[in-house]
Amino acid sequence: MAFELHPQLAADTILVREESDLLLLMMDDAQYPWFIVVPKQVQITEWHDLDQAMQIRLHLYCVELGKAVTAAFGSTKINTAALGNMVSQLHVHVIGRRQQDPAWPKPVWGQAPRIPMEQEEIKTRTHSLNQYFSGR
Amino acid sequence: MAFELHPQLAADTILVREESDLLLLMMDDAQYPWFIVVPKQVQITEWHDLDQAMQIRLHLYCVELGKAVTAAFGSTKINTAALGNMVSQLHVHVIGRRQQDPAWPKPVWGQAPRIPMEQEEIKTRTHSLNQYFSGR
Repeated sequence: MAFELHPQLAADTILVREESDLLLLMMDDAQYPWFIVVPKQVQITEWHDLDQAMQIRLHLYCVELGKAVTAAFGSTKINTAALGNMVSQLHVHVIGRRQQDPAWPKPVWGQAPRIPMEQEEIKTRTHSLNQYFSGR
Repeated sequence: MAFELHPQLAADTILVREESDLLLLMMDDAQYPWFIVVPKQVQITEWHDLDQAMQIRLHLYCVELGKAVTAAFGSTKINTAALGNMVSQLHVHVIGRRQQDPAWPKPVWGQAPRIPMEQEEIKTRTHSLNQYFSGR
């Protein structure tokens, strides 16, 4: 069975980077720099469903992403989470937060409805992240 | 400067296990099997503030904890998150979820107020977890 991104994740996000073993997606929401990392594996819903090498690989990628988001967007707090209550396909949120954002200090899920980004904003944000990851 | 657990975490949780480098705490809330892992380091607020060995150590410990919670409490989904918007000291939530719990499918934060556990429940829960971690 081939990997397929869950349709809800596909609908809500923009592809920033495709790595050999994972996808880096950006939530289409102008309110936060909100990224999602998805391992390209089938029928994985929990961290402990991955083998240990991939648990480490995915985690370190998300930690690096947190640094990148802080650098690119001046976020003052990073929220990292694997929830999966609505979309069970394993995906990890890495969200840049600041005291001025609409949900602060609450978590972002289920707060202000998503505000899709302008094309220009999408370009700027994906470019910053790609530059960071290409430069490593 | 010596490590000190943030007073809010100390007030809301019960110590389950003290490892050489981290604390395993249990949120005093009968509604969910809700655990929190805190690295015993000072002035750390983000995953990327830890050195890489500790990023891996803490993460793998939380993944193992997710397995333990699933085994001990029959949880059907694990939620794992490092948020820190209210308490900045780095701490990772590992929460066992099920469709019958009061917040499902929402995240647990800011939902139903905490219901402190009876002493018997505290003993049973900490015992299950300790057995799991001692038996590895």
